[in-house]
Amino acid sequence: MAPKRNWSYGGGPFPATVFAHLVAVALITLVLVWLLHFREGLAFKSDNKAKIFNIHPLLMLLGFVLISGEATMTYKTVPSIRKRQKLFHLLLHLIALIAGIIGIYAVFKFHNELRIPNMYSLHSWLGMSTICLFGLQWLFSFFSFWYPRAQPSARARLAPWHAVLGMVIFFMAILSAETGLVEKFIFLGLRTSQEALIVNFTGLLILLFAVSVGLTVLLPRT
Amino acid sequence: MAPKRNWSYGGGPFPATVFAHLVAVALITLVLVWLLHFREGLAFKSDNKAKIFNIHPLLMLLGFVLISGEATMTYKTVPSIRKRQKLFHLLLHLIALIAGIIGIYAVFKFHNELRIPNMYSLHSWLGMSTICLFGLQWLFSFFSFWYPRAQPSARARLAPWHAVLGMVIFFMAILSAETGLVEKFIFLGLRTSQEALIVNFTGLLILLFAVSVGLTVLLPRT
Repeated sequence: MAPKRNWSYGGGPFPATVFAHLVAVALITLVLVWLLHFREGLAFKSDNKAKIFNIHPLLMLLGFVLISGEATMTYKTVPSIRKRQKLFHLLLHLIALIAGIIGIYAVFKFHNELRIPNMYSLHSWLGMSTICLFGLQWLFSFFSFWYPRAQPSARARLAPWHAVLGMVIFFMAILSAETGLVEKFIFLGLRTSQEALIVNFTGLLILLFAVSVGLTVLLPRT
Repeated sequence: MAPKRNWSYGGGPFPATVFAHLVAVALITLVLVWLLHFREGLAFKSDNKAKIFNIHPLLMLLGFVLISGEATMTYKTVPSIRKRQKLFHLLLHLIALIAGIIGIYAVFKFHNELRIPNMYSLHSWLGMSTICLFGLQWLFSFFSFWYPRAQPSARARLAPWHAVLGMVIFFMAILSAETGLVEKFIFLGLRTSQEALIVNFTGLLILLFAVSVGLTVLLPRT
């Protein structure tokens, strides 16, 4: 951003946004096949505690990663006036945040009902830091950019840091997702089964989704 | 990069490079304490196979992550003419690549001597993709930007994509490092011991290192 030389990239962000959506569809398919076919399915209350756990990867991936990626891309994907793009940006981020909070609640509920300790792994540390920063960034940005809004000069100073912090938080969400997949993979004792391949391909596609969202941010509109 | 509005960031990349170096020193300390004090130490040949494994996290973290981060920052940290910055950039990346290859060789050696299967986890898939892309990017860039070099117009077209691909590969190296730490953490059955805290703080500091390297790339020289 703001380089000294005026770098130009061939092509605009359009191919990257299309690719991100294709990858998102594949990810939704993979995670549903994983949780419904290979695992026990989904439930908030159940004697089969695995069903409670399963709410966690579902909401974190579909809600927190995919919808927040979608929210990040709105300035390139929503063909509308700037104010409406902004509204989509903040509403989608709010949905992502709520999905993330419910998803984290589910894993605490699962741990507590099985008396498994909470918050000891790097995955949990990364994930908790991510959602706290996400919530803070959302609140701070809501009051600075939406209502009541800061002065134009202050907004202009804040905007680039808002974008960089947003990219850092998105990067942290991806780190949390990938470490979570690895943690579950090892706990389940997976090796080279069909299920193992589904979990690993989910991880690879999350990486591709992240890269294509990153490109939509970096590539200027042509 | 190349935004429509001319975004300006207060302050240059200097604080971020200083911070990256402080974090690197802390990381070197943590990983050495982990491998030498809590684990069995380091050796390429030993009846204690854990010592062979330990070469892997050491070289991947110090060599592949920290030195490649250093290589990424050279355009902001090496106070010299552009040609010398380029030379440091490519030499440091070469050292990182060699460290990475030896580090991966060590973990294959460890697996083979204990008859543990290779390449089934997401960590191994991410890591192997990262080092292959790293090697390809290095070779392609060497011939395009150093010797024999492409035409100036072609170099100008390639440069921004070189930078973006480099950032993607660095991001993948961080993902590989974090998933590797989580994998080892679970295999070792760590929970809340001193060692567990050291591994988790290593993971957090890797994230801080990555963010500060990212900032040195994004922030223009003032």
